[in-house]
Amino acid sequence: MEHTVIFTTEDNKTATVTVPTNTMLADAAHIAGIDIGQPCGGQGRCGRCAVQVTDGNVRRRSTLRLSPADVEQGYALACQTVVEGDVSIYVPPQEKIERRLTTDRVVAEVTVPADYDYDLAQSIRRVHLQLTPPTMEDQIDDWSRLQTAFRLQANMQNVNCSLHLLQTMGETLRAGEWQVTAVIERDIDNPDKPIRLIELYPGYVDEYSPLWGCAIDIGTTTVSLWLVDLISGQVKAQVAEYNGQIARGEDVISRIIFAGKNGGGQEMRQRVLDTINDLLETACKRVKAKPEDVMKATVAGNSTMIHLLLGIPAGSIRLSPFITAVNHPPLMTAKDVGINIHHEGTVDCLPGVASYVGADITAGVLSSGLERAENVTLFIDIGTNGETVLGNRDWLVTCACSAGPAFEGAGVMNGMRATQGAIEEVWISNDTLEPTYRVIGGGKPKGICGSGLISLLSEAFLTGVIDKAGNVNLTAGSSRVREGTHGGEYVVAWGAETESGEDIVMSRVDIDNLLRAKAAIYAGFTVLADTVGIPLETTDKVLVGGSFGKYINVEKAVQIGLLPDMDWPRFEFLGNTSVKGAYYALLDWRKRERITEIAKRMTYVELSADNSFYEAFTSALFLPHTDLSKFPSVEAALHKA
Amino acid sequence: MEHTVIFTTEDNKTATVTVPTNTMLADAAHIAGIDIGQPCGGQGRCGRCAVQVTDGNVRRRSTLRLSPADVEQGYALACQTVVEGDVSIYVPPQEKIERRLTTDRVVAEVTVPADYDYDLAQSIRRVHLQLTPPTMEDQIDDWSRLQTAFRLQANMQNVNCSLHLLQTMGETLRAGEWQVTAVIERDIDNPDKPIRLIELYPGYVDEYSPLWGCAIDIGTTTVSLWLVDLISGQVKAQVAEYNGQIARGEDVISRIIFAGKNGGGQEMRQRVLDTINDLLETACKRVKAKPEDVMKATVAGNSTMIHLLLGIPAGSIRLSPFITAVNHPPLMTAKDVGINIHHEGTVDCLPGVASYVGADITAGVLSSGLERAENVTLFIDIGTNGETVLGNRDWLVTCACSAGPAFEGAGVMNGMRATQGAIEEVWISNDTLEPTYRVIGGGKPKGICGSGLISLLSEAFLTGVIDKAGNVNLTAGSSRVREGTHGGEYVVAWGAETESGEDIVMSRVDIDNLLRAKAAIYAGFTVLADTVGIPLETTDKVLVGGSFGKYINVEKAVQIGLLPDMDWPRFEFLGNTSVKGAYYALLDWRKRERITEIAKRMTYVELSADNSFYEAFTSALFLPHTDLSKFPSVEAALHKA
Repeated sequence: MEHTVIFTTEDNKTATVTVPTNTMLADAAHIAGIDIGQPCGGQGRCGRCAVQVTDGNVRRRSTLRLSPADVEQGYALACQTVVEGDVSIYVPPQEKIERRLTTDRVVAEVTVPADYDYDLAQSIRRVHLQLTPPTMEDQIDDWSRLQTAFRLQANMQNVNCSLHLLQTMGETLRAGEWQVTAVIERDIDNPDKPIRLIELYPGYVDEYSPLWGCAIDIGTTTVSLWLVDLISGQVKAQVAEYNGQIARGEDVISRIIFAGKNGGGQEMRQRVLDTINDLLETACKRVKAKPEDVMKATVAGNSTMIHLLLGIPAGSIRLSPFITAVNHPPLMTAKDVGINIHHEGTVDCLPGVASYVGADITAGVLSSGLERAENVTLFIDIGTNGETVLGNRDWLVTCACSAGPAFEGAGVMNGMRATQGAIEEVWISNDTLEPTYRVIGGGKPKGICGSGLISLLSEAFLTGVIDKAGNVNLTAGSSRVREGTHGGEYVVAWGAETESGEDIVMSRVDIDNLLRAKAAIYAGFTVLADTVGIPLETTDKVLVGGSFGKYINVEKAVQIGLLPDMDWPRFEFLGNTSVKGAYYALLDWRKRERITEIAKRMTYVELSADNSFYEAFTSALFLPHTDLSKFPSVEAALHKA
Repeated sequence: MEHTVIFTTEDNKTATVTVPTNTMLADAAHIAGIDIGQPCGGQGRCGRCAVQVTDGNVRRRSTLRLSPADVEQGYALACQTVVEGDVSIYVPPQEKIERRLTTDRVVAEVTVPADYDYDLAQSIRRVHLQLTPPTMEDQIDDWSRLQTAFRLQANMQNVNCSLHLLQTMGETLRAGEWQVTAVIERDIDNPDKPIRLIELYPGYVDEYSPLWGCAIDIGTTTVSLWLVDLISGQVKAQVAEYNGQIARGEDVISRIIFAGKNGGGQEMRQRVLDTINDLLETACKRVKAKPEDVMKATVAGNSTMIHLLLGIPAGSIRLSPFITAVNHPPLMTAKDVGINIHHEGTVDCLPGVASYVGADITAGVLSSGLERAENVTLFIDIGTNGETVLGNRDWLVTCACSAGPAFEGAGVMNGMRATQGAIEEVWISNDTLEPTYRVIGGGKPKGICGSGLISLLSEAFLTGVIDKAGNVNLTAGSSRVREGTHGGEYVVAWGAETESGEDIVMSRVDIDNLLRAKAAIYAGFTVLADTVGIPLETTDKVLVGGSFGKYINVEKAVQIGLLPDMDWPRFEFLGNTSVKGAYYALLDWRKRERITEIAKRMTYVELSADNSFYEAFTSALFLPHTDLSKFPSVEAALHKA
């Protein structure tokens, strides 16, 4: 049976669709072109897709995230509710993901590697060719004539060409009066391998004009793109943007679940392609180029992001024994992948190691320099997956601990991403327990971002607002400390000073989530160090990747036991090591090959099969740790306090 | 300015479109979905696209093919007339190209080459693989796991895979419980070259079940397709059909002109793809297979047909210095070409030699055995282009003479193709000059096909109805010989006995066209023989290709001077040597490579740049030839007569 569903949004737009019985409200909305966010991927867990049924019959499969009062008022989760008759639905205001380029915070200073030499390292080449015009005495076909020119003038013996180029070649050769500029891609180390002809321009293109490539990092949260002139090696534009998939799942697991639904994989793929193609267009505009002028893209990202980009089912990543379909995708053309660079340009998805240690980490190991380190070094990408690598130029071990997105602001009541309005640092007075805080962009606070949460947790611990187990000390003697709806809580900002008018707090539930996140990451370090029998504190350096890492206050991160207790100069914060690795791979085919070597060299330690991880995790669930002797500087600070 | 054009067809269908001033009527009809045939490719030369303007203003760019009375009645050529106001157009009945499978006449007996060995010769392979299921201790990705199985179980070191297969691989492996059947394509002679994975099926496919490939010959007139079981090598279905491009040009030149118009190339490509895909479906139905089960296609055809199939502009083929865009297209996938076999299956367009000596001839040289002949042999494909090859296993020279389509029934008033109702053989009584004839399929005659024209010309010559210059002897003393609208003519069938009720005749104009066609072909032989300094009559054999060749009466073909005067046993009629060559190439990669060798070995003689051709042509414009001593058997027959 068919039913009519009428959607009305806050701004009084309506849309009507006809769907069969048992159609999910979220699917009906999708057909109607109404956007309903599903940050948990449609699992009924986050409650953020709630809509109000104003008329008609629906069946709620789950109301777990709705109060009885909500249900009384007609609220239902769009991802858990099916249509059973004609219905009218009110769609409340949707969380807006600010689609502003976040370049203001993430722009890195990039210097071209000193050893970069376009002639020796770059696989993309521009070649000028002067062909002999055909005559009645020389009737060889256009393509053979061009191949001859490649052989004689560029010493390229074995050039391949696409059907599209065969279709346009005749006109190009004649338009250029038999002078042409070819763009080709070659395998530098294997001159016998076929060379791919990507594009042919009539006449001679100025040899110093830019030859474009781009490096892309698909983060779960943010997608970054660097536009690079392959001749000089310089990064000419850097852009970044939230990954458009966020609206269908905030973490990789939610996205895998959403992608597993009917049409979900296709939607996920399109969403990240839209993000990438928007970024590409913005970056190209900045340098007055066109997307089709870009001849190659290297792509880094975690394994799930790469699967979703390529439309490859990712379900097996989530379920034991946690298998990817592919760790090292073959080279593909842009038209197959759907990225709007030159349609015959290569898209090179860098190789990953395992389901939860992807190409973002192998690229990071390259760009961080870990793979060439003489001494034992720890590399950590603080984020949802907490990927960690320990090693040096001789060996590499790696693991991923499911830290969860707490440090990205998710699963924390007043958590938010590090944008305008986020509290990014907090200080609490030892005497009055009154806080001072700094807000990104100034102005009224909207919530607390990752670096703010680390800082807040540390200050609350050192001032005795919370104890080492995370319990809120309700007898601390400040109105800031109180019993809230989710247990004890600390008020960081009173409603009067906040954007929403409501208090910004850190609750007992938030603290537990943060403790679990930091414990998982620290337990990862521990297990890796134990695996190779090296005391964690003897590592020479700790390299912290991820743009989030750049804003962490080391002292406070050590105080909560997120980072190991070492001298500060031994920490290096490297920013987005993933996009940087993709940039190195784009410039230099040998560096690209090194990433393949890194992926092969890395020994993956599966933590979910490892009892010692569970023990290490449990020990780390305290501030800073059960074993305080591992954190001598914190011990000293506590004695001082 | 926009105008309304209303088309009405004979069956009172109407279609209305709005188009700007100066839109060609043919284009307006195309937009309106009304089919108006343009057998000359829209050059205004054939007059067969005439329509009647019943109301409104048009401008006729050419009325060359219309009589003043036609114009008086409002007739206009759709390909030469533009809209200048609102108009109403009557579209007369269009010539129907009978879309019946012509298998009844073209089915050849095919024996699998005695040396065919699937294991040694076939590049397409079916491979059974048993993978180890993943566990927590063995978390390697699906694609690496499959590659390992290829290495260990099939000794295949370097297997490539498409994005599409990556997208489906995980499900296939699990559906087959880690047992799979792969279909791959390899380069037999170069085991180090990458092997292409085409398809993956769950479980084990019976190793004796058919593995399908197809061989295609795209003739200017007829497209033939053979469906082949690559395991046994047997041809399991043979189908043929008129090339759908005929309605937009009967010969290659007309088609190149049509393809050069706006959108014309795209239409030409689609028309031949439709023909091929229809044939594929018919053939597959016959053996209860699906088109996507076909894993490879080899394609032969003249250079223009291959260009039009691939959507490559063919304009330079027609204009001096007569250059193709490509003689040897690279291997392509079916999805790129648009042929509906398995989308990842290879389409292998065989290599040609020049603009007018294409892959149909190189394939013919292979399948005819010419390339391995000990003695000097002549190979001729009697058709529009009159491609000829002279040589043996040591050398090959080739030329093409623009014979025109007279022997295919075009340019001859009562000419037609060799289908139902065509007069295929004629005898004329020496005493009464009365004819006897045989009609294909029995029944009333509709016209005369190629073999009938040869036979008629020869009989008319030997009985004195026409003289050696082709003049009709009006004083011969029979009512069959008379003055017609196009000069002297001979009546083959009175209106009372014909399908249309009108007399079927051969006119002076027809005779001239036939003389020019046969003279061009014979001149080609002469020039080739002269080029290598070998007397034509000393050639060991004459191999005649083309399905038309099979129906020629040798005696009569010699009598008109189309074929050289030799003992009949030295002639061999081989049928469609082109599709047979494509079949050999499909079965055996080494035979395929031999075609490439043949194309390289063939020395192309460009006749249009050769004065000796013009002289030979002029000398051959007589029956049988200016120099009767070259035709001793005809000389004897004339003395006898």
